[in-house]
Amino acid sequence: MSKRVLLDTRPLAEGLALWKHRLEALGLWIPLEAETIEVRDAVGRITAEAVFASISSPFYHASAMDGYAVRFTDTFGASETAPLRLKLGQDAHYVDTGDPVPEGFNAVIMVEDVTEVDGHIEFIAPVTPWKNVRTVGEDIVATELIAPESHCVRPVDMGAMLAGGHTTINVRRRPRVTIIPTGDEIVEPGTGLKTGDIIEYNSRVLGGLVTEWGGDFTRHPIVPDDPEALKKSLSEAVRTADMVVVNAGASAGSEDFTGQIIGELGEVILHGINIKPGKPVILGIVEGTPVMGVPGYPVSAYITFTLFARPLMMAWQGLEDAGPGHMRAVLSRQVASALGQEEFLRMKLGKVGYQYVATPLGRGAGLIMSLVRADGILRIPAMSEGLAAGAEVDIELLRRDTEIENTVVSIGSHDQSLDLLANALKKRYPLFSLSSAHVGSMGGLMALKKGEAHLAPTHLLDEETGEYNVPYLKKLLPDKGITLINLVHRQQGLMVLPENPKGIKSFQDLTRADVTFINRQRGAGTRLLLDLHLKRLNIDPKDVQGYEKEEFTHMAVASAVLTGVADTGLGVLSAARALGLDFIPVAPERYDLAIPNEFMETPKVSALLDVIRNDSGFREAVQAMGGYDISDMGKVMWEEKNDKDSSRNET
Amino acid sequence: MSKRVLLDTRPLAEGLALWKHRLEALGLWIPLEAETIEVRDAVGRITAEAVFASISSPFYHASAMDGYAVRFTDTFGASETAPLRLKLGQDAHYVDTGDPVPEGFNAVIMVEDVTEVDGHIEFIAPVTPWKNVRTVGEDIVATELIAPESHCVRPVDMGAMLAGGHTTINVRRRPRVTIIPTGDEIVEPGTGLKTGDIIEYNSRVLGGLVTEWGGDFTRHPIVPDDPEALKKSLSEAVRTADMVVVNAGASAGSEDFTGQIIGELGEVILHGINIKPGKPVILGIVEGTPVMGVPGYPVSAYITFTLFARPLMMAWQGLEDAGPGHMRAVLSRQVASALGQEEFLRMKLGKVGYQYVATPLGRGAGLIMSLVRADGILRIPAMSEGLAAGAEVDIELLRRDTEIENTVVSIGSHDQSLDLLANALKKRYPLFSLSSAHVGSMGGLMALKKGEAHLAPTHLLDEETGEYNVPYLKKLLPDKGITLINLVHRQQGLMVLPENPKGIKSFQDLTRADVTFINRQRGAGTRLLLDLHLKRLNIDPKDVQGYEKEEFTHMAVASAVLTGVADTGLGVLSAARALGLDFIPVAPERYDLAIPNEFMETPKVSALLDVIRNDSGFREAVQAMGGYDISDMGKVMWEEKNDKDSSRNET
Repeated sequence: MSKRVLLDTRPLAEGLALWKHRLEALGLWIPLEAETIEVRDAVGRITAEAVFASISSPFYHASAMDGYAVRFTDTFGASETAPLRLKLGQDAHYVDTGDPVPEGFNAVIMVEDVTEVDGHIEFIAPVTPWKNVRTVGEDIVATELIAPESHCVRPVDMGAMLAGGHTTINVRRRPRVTIIPTGDEIVEPGTGLKTGDIIEYNSRVLGGLVTEWGGDFTRHPIVPDDPEALKKSLSEAVRTADMVVVNAGASAGSEDFTGQIIGELGEVILHGINIKPGKPVILGIVEGTPVMGVPGYPVSAYITFTLFARPLMMAWQGLEDAGPGHMRAVLSRQVASALGQEEFLRMKLGKVGYQYVATPLGRGAGLIMSLVRADGILRIPAMSEGLAAGAEVDIELLRRDTEIENTVVSIGSHDQSLDLLANALKKRYPLFSLSSAHVGSMGGLMALKKGEAHLAPTHLLDEETGEYNVPYLKKLLPDKGITLINLVHRQQGLMVLPENPKGIKSFQDLTRADVTFINRQRGAGTRLLLDLHLKRLNIDPKDVQGYEKEEFTHMAVASAVLTGVADTGLGVLSAARALGLDFIPVAPERYDLAIPNEFMETPKVSALLDVIRNDSGFREAVQAMGGYDISDMGKVMWEEKNDKDSSRNET
Repeated sequence: MSKRVLLDTRPLAEGLALWKHRLEALGLWIPLEAETIEVRDAVGRITAEAVFASISSPFYHASAMDGYAVRFTDTFGASETAPLRLKLGQDAHYVDTGDPVPEGFNAVIMVEDVTEVDGHIEFIAPVTPWKNVRTVGEDIVATELIAPESHCVRPVDMGAMLAGGHTTINVRRRPRVTIIPTGDEIVEPGTGLKTGDIIEYNSRVLGGLVTEWGGDFTRHPIVPDDPEALKKSLSEAVRTADMVVVNAGASAGSEDFTGQIIGELGEVILHGINIKPGKPVILGIVEGTPVMGVPGYPVSAYITFTLFARPLMMAWQGLEDAGPGHMRAVLSRQVASALGQEEFLRMKLGKVGYQYVATPLGRGAGLIMSLVRADGILRIPAMSEGLAAGAEVDIELLRRDTEIENTVVSIGSHDQSLDLLANALKKRYPLFSLSSAHVGSMGGLMALKKGEAHLAPTHLLDEETGEYNVPYLKKLLPDKGITLINLVHRQQGLMVLPENPKGIKSFQDLTRADVTFINRQRGAGTRLLLDLHLKRLNIDPKDVQGYEKEEFTHMAVASAVLTGVADTGLGVLSAARALGLDFIPVAPERYDLAIPNEFMETPKVSALLDVIRNDSGFREAVQAMGGYDISDMGKVMWEEKNDKDSSRNET
């Protein structure tokens, strides 16, 4: 449409180079000026110049012991058979540790090696010159380098600076970043919400990053979609800030605003970059101040701000941007990617056995939770159409690798008790975490087979035997050596709006013309349960409206029912209760954790089992949700001893 | 002596267990109470309870694109040959990204796929249900876990919490630690110093650690060595702080005070622990507040505070103390250790080729610079008498391993231009560091031979040929493949007090009865230079008073002369000038860097060579010291092509 501007599609590397070169040309890509601060406030600050000691430490000859200062020549000849005596106050002086050794004296005899007799000290061994004396400069010699330029000051550096005679030092000024949220639809967190409102939180995420990167962050009040208002705010902000970030809100219209206004007030260096998410980013300069227009979706905002603002902030502090840590990991599933755009995928990582496994999280630019859950980022180059399962990939880390090593990776069915378990584990064992990927019961067993998970939550009912899980394990994971631990028995049922306006009573109602169903994905235990019941009732899935529309969790199904996307869906009681839905029970089922024996005794899985078996707070929380029977919680339901992989035990 | 208390000598593990069990028994080893804070201030804080979403995000069906909201059933049948039209304002409504999809509508057609004609939209393809709509809860479903308990809040977590309907959260209160410096000899930094004064900086180092560990730190003014004053301060401090630390100053007398006063006001749990340094630590409780008496030497203070206060502070925040990172490294030299005490050695680390090499730093408890320089700590168990060179050891890291990988390891002779070079490198290439161990020229060549250093500064004069360095390289490192780069030519001479009170003119004066000499250590180029001259002059070293007393750097020799430890020593002009000494030139000499060819083209060594060759600031700084000729700086003086180790090139 005519009102849409055409965005640049240059590659990221080119965009970054353009940004840097333009700012370099303007003298803006250099360290900020220094400021003088008290050494005692310097932890975490960056030195703007080298700090050389101005005095020595110690700056006088100091006794290193409690003892007696003597002249070493006076001690020659002392022995057990011929002890020597020196007159106190004349040839020997008592000194505490740290006391100056009196002028003309040059050694200290330790108090333990001396007897005081008649105003004399008596001792049985000679001392060497400067024995037990910290001579001037033993620790720091005046003029010595204590900290180089561009050094991040640590507590011990402060100590050495103070000891070396400094009470103030010159450090780089913190970069000042002002963030302006814009948009008519944007509202302050905590205000009464009405449909169409969008809670403004991007400025807090970006502001938090500014703080983490060593800068100071100012948040401008929300500016409505009014070009004059934004122009005024931006003109003011560029006068006090080192960088101004305009966060365009969710509408493309307002983003176009930003570009136009930056162009009017100054210069647009670039509008648009060939990445996903983050394509519509704007880079410019207004009155000598770099300005970024950052897209409104939270993931786009986070990624573009990190890509373009972080290296500049590092340069302003005289630091080289070492960038994130990296890790090689194996891709747990195939990832498709559109040709022609560099894509940034959020990934969950886990160390399973000896390999790191990477699993993609939700890809939507609007999913802040994909960043909350992510352990790292996988970049897929513009020229790639995707990557195959099992490919070794390079992950940019968002967490420390020790955190990743301490994570129990659960892949499989979803139940809300898993969220409670994750929390109870963190509470009882703060070192360990539980990460859950929700791919359904069958997907979980496949993940165990490929060595991608430590456990798989599963509730697969075998049609022939009526037995849960075991027949599937025998069939799909023969000889893997699995222990099956019960987590809960739970109630499955049909979720409907309060007071059940459509009068749904059983699976038979799903074939009604006025009833829309919302299904779970293929491979989910709940899906198999549905299919089993439809088959028993001779209902053709084609006759169920909405059978093809899939969700991945119970809560997503509940949410679809609550908001009118569907009239009913199959799920657990706790999900219905959480959103205030009515619930028509159709079947109880057993929900177990399948755990390869090789992982059973690793510290992290042991900790998890301890919580399941012994944490009363966890048990109470599960029961409080309703619809759960915990009588078998933590019980071994089945165990296959034959473990061919026992040599792969994790340490 | 009678006034000294007998210290405990229990092993560290036992002391730690005693401390923990006693505090557990008193209910003090548990998380502190929660406090409610604004989400926007929560970065870095620890959640005191799990945060579950209170609303969904989005909380209404929102358009994911700029486009037109429609009923998907109205779009059936649209095709290129049979476009469909829908009436605007009735069957189609324009929506910006983020706008609510009007009640009764259930899909969005992208603006790019539509033409506006006569108050209608025209389109050529049908849409599926909820196409281009972010349905309620797509990002966050109400009741979903956003962050577990005991989670350190990151910027993205703040975003998700705000999106999930929270403006405040409950986090753990920051632990409050009050530090009381005591001692008559202790003075505030920045005050006029007189002999015997000790600058108080331990409280700043420990306070910095408190901040790093997530606590708030209060510094009490210095308390003199007066039991009543200390009693009063301690009694008051325990009422407001979660922990009080008394830092005893350097005298053992005042430490004994602390123990006595803690005992009088409360309970001493332990006084003394079998570690070195740090033995005289005191742990106690006063009025339900844990109290530590921390020894006065800075390294002892740092180590004991870290060992005993850190785990408690982590427990107060509900965090498990994961402790420092670890690294396996090869010991570059033998380390002796007294049997019966667990020793904490500060170590320098470097990645040379494919191995990490650990070199012990100064061991004195008074050496704050040993902590400044350290990359890690090596613990030597009480039952060990030491470790052999080449032993593989476990190092507790004080720096990140990437910093260690980016460090150029220099082992060999010392010259002040190396300090300037370290600073210039950091300034020009903030990612890289130069670490120098000063073991003399010969020691440096041995380090190259053993693969422990990237370069060795060396100034070894061959007696027979009069040539510098090359004959030694040929003899000691045959076939190693070394490039010899000149750093400086420098002036060696005898340093004497201003106005040369003893009238020293040449090496001959060293045999005078009234002249005391201070020597350099065996293997130092300066020592060889002295020996060469003594030999030429037929002077027996036995006739030189002080020949046996060794220092390791030029500055240490200058310092010894300045402070009267010796009358004269051999060293460089810059060291004499730095301390205002007079200087009697005796010989110019060449000071080169020997660099194995395998390291010549690594990024870090390349960066160093770039600074040496092209950094005018560095060159000017060297010349400003005086006594240096930089005409050959950066020049290749000699090169041996035969590099058997070329396969070991670092990446």
